[in-house]
Amino acid sequence: MEREMRRIKLVVAYEGTNYCGWQVQPNGVTIEEMLNNALTELLGENIQVIGASRTDAGVHSLGNVAVFDTETKIPPEKICFALNQRLPEDIVVQTSCEVPKDFHPRRCYSEKTYAYRILNRKIPVPTLRHDTYFYYRDLDVEKMQQAALYLLGRHDFKSFCSAKTTVEDTVREILSCTVERSLEHVVTIRITGTGFLYNMVRIIAGTLISVGIGEIEPSVIEKILKKKDRSAAGPTAPAQGLTMLEIKYGKST
Amino acid sequence: MEREMRRIKLVVAYEGTNYCGWQVQPNGVTIEEMLNNALTELLGENIQVIGASRTDAGVHSLGNVAVFDTETKIPPEKICFALNQRLPEDIVVQTSCEVPKDFHPRRCYSEKTYAYRILNRKIPVPTLRHDTYFYYRDLDVEKMQQAALYLLGRHDFKSFCSAKTTVEDTVREILSCTVERSLEHVVTIRITGTGFLYNMVRIIAGTLISVGIGEIEPSVIEKILKKKDRSAAGPTAPAQGLTMLEIKYGKST
Repeated sequence: MEREMRRIKLVVAYEGTNYCGWQVQPNGVTIEEMLNNALTELLGENIQVIGASRTDAGVHSLGNVAVFDTETKIPPEKICFALNQRLPEDIVVQTSCEVPKDFHPRRCYSEKTYAYRILNRKIPVPTLRHDTYFYYRDLDVEKMQQAALYLLGRHDFKSFCSAKTTVEDTVREILSCTVERSLEHVVTIRITGTGFLYNMVRIIAGTLISVGIGEIEPSVIEKILKKKDRSAAGPTAPAQGLTMLEIKYGKST
Repeated sequence: MEREMRRIKLVVAYEGTNYCGWQVQPNGVTIEEMLNNALTELLGENIQVIGASRTDAGVHSLGNVAVFDTETKIPPEKICFALNQRLPEDIVVQTSCEVPKDFHPRRCYSEKTYAYRILNRKIPVPTLRHDTYFYYRDLDVEKMQQAALYLLGRHDFKSFCSAKTTVEDTVREILSCTVERSLEHVVTIRITGTGFLYNMVRIIAGTLISVGIGEIEPSVIEKILKKKDRSAAGPTAPAQGLTMLEIKYGKST
């Protein structure tokens, strides 16, 4: 009797502080490598996951997605519990389930949501140092929200993409982008899109910060998009403020 | 000309994860020791701070208070900035100011507020692991709030005090106690009082958790208070869920 191969989808949360990002690399420990090692050990098969969002060093996640194929007889929903026993406490698999064999976390249509969190007050707060970007100049959140509206819809986001990219098609679609301040002085930029370019959310965050301090008027975002030139946009905001929140597969109604 | 001695008050925030609590002790690094060393170095005087809340190992703070006496000519409001240069990033002094020479952070009337945060969902979240207590059984927040009301006012809190204490007068006054659940499944117990016994907030949190899972009915809190016996209350909830939020000196109107 032939053993059956099944595709399993994991939802993976992590604090990125102690990792060199998602993707396996020669120098430094990554989230992908930790998952591959834990799964290989657990299942006794050589497992290599395919990730949805290849987050940078220092970026966090509540809902990144990875898939892998296995012959295991462990029920798919139980894999996450067994796996978490073999992972450090800064990587926690939230759910595991079986998906169709042709499901691919980057190629299937998805709506990804990221949060960029800025601690906007005069003095840092120790408990927030790893998952916010501390920025002491006053941010005008209303102006940042006005600016965010220019990003909505389908645009060529070449200006908001690392110049290092090799991608040719830089057109992406942003479905929503909101900016809010909490009582604890955390300004959160929440952005949902069907796809993001390399460093795109961090460059958007850096540019919205420039708007927030009055260096750029909100309407200038339109001109930045038209220039299709990385140097037209603001700086790339630091990694630690960014969290991959959620990936929804299939169109939302 | 004689140099003038002034008393300076600091508001101190810290993540307690890497410290053996507030109070100086022979084995292990404490917040108080870090402050003493940084101040002694900065001011060139032998400084020993007096703290308001002597928090346990692993407990965090946004607003603990410490005072010390100095002959320095550095303007009181600037001391915090110079001091933060000499402190690690998990201890950040929020403000510094001069106070009357007879101001004592523990003896003067104050209203202290603590938060106990419980991550109440089925699977842990890595970014919250240091400043929440992960508890997977469903908590009934409404029942916890009902129970909290029995704690309000002046009571003998002997049942809610570590049996290790040497304090004789165990009467304390609780001014408010609320229990709320956030969208992110964090249940926060927020409690304000004019004074707290050793481990009191953590024992209250542990007891309210017992109420939240149905082990204790809310009205039983009244009976626990009357027993004046530590074993009548629930367990001491773990340190990492506790944060000292704020200390207000003088009666609020």
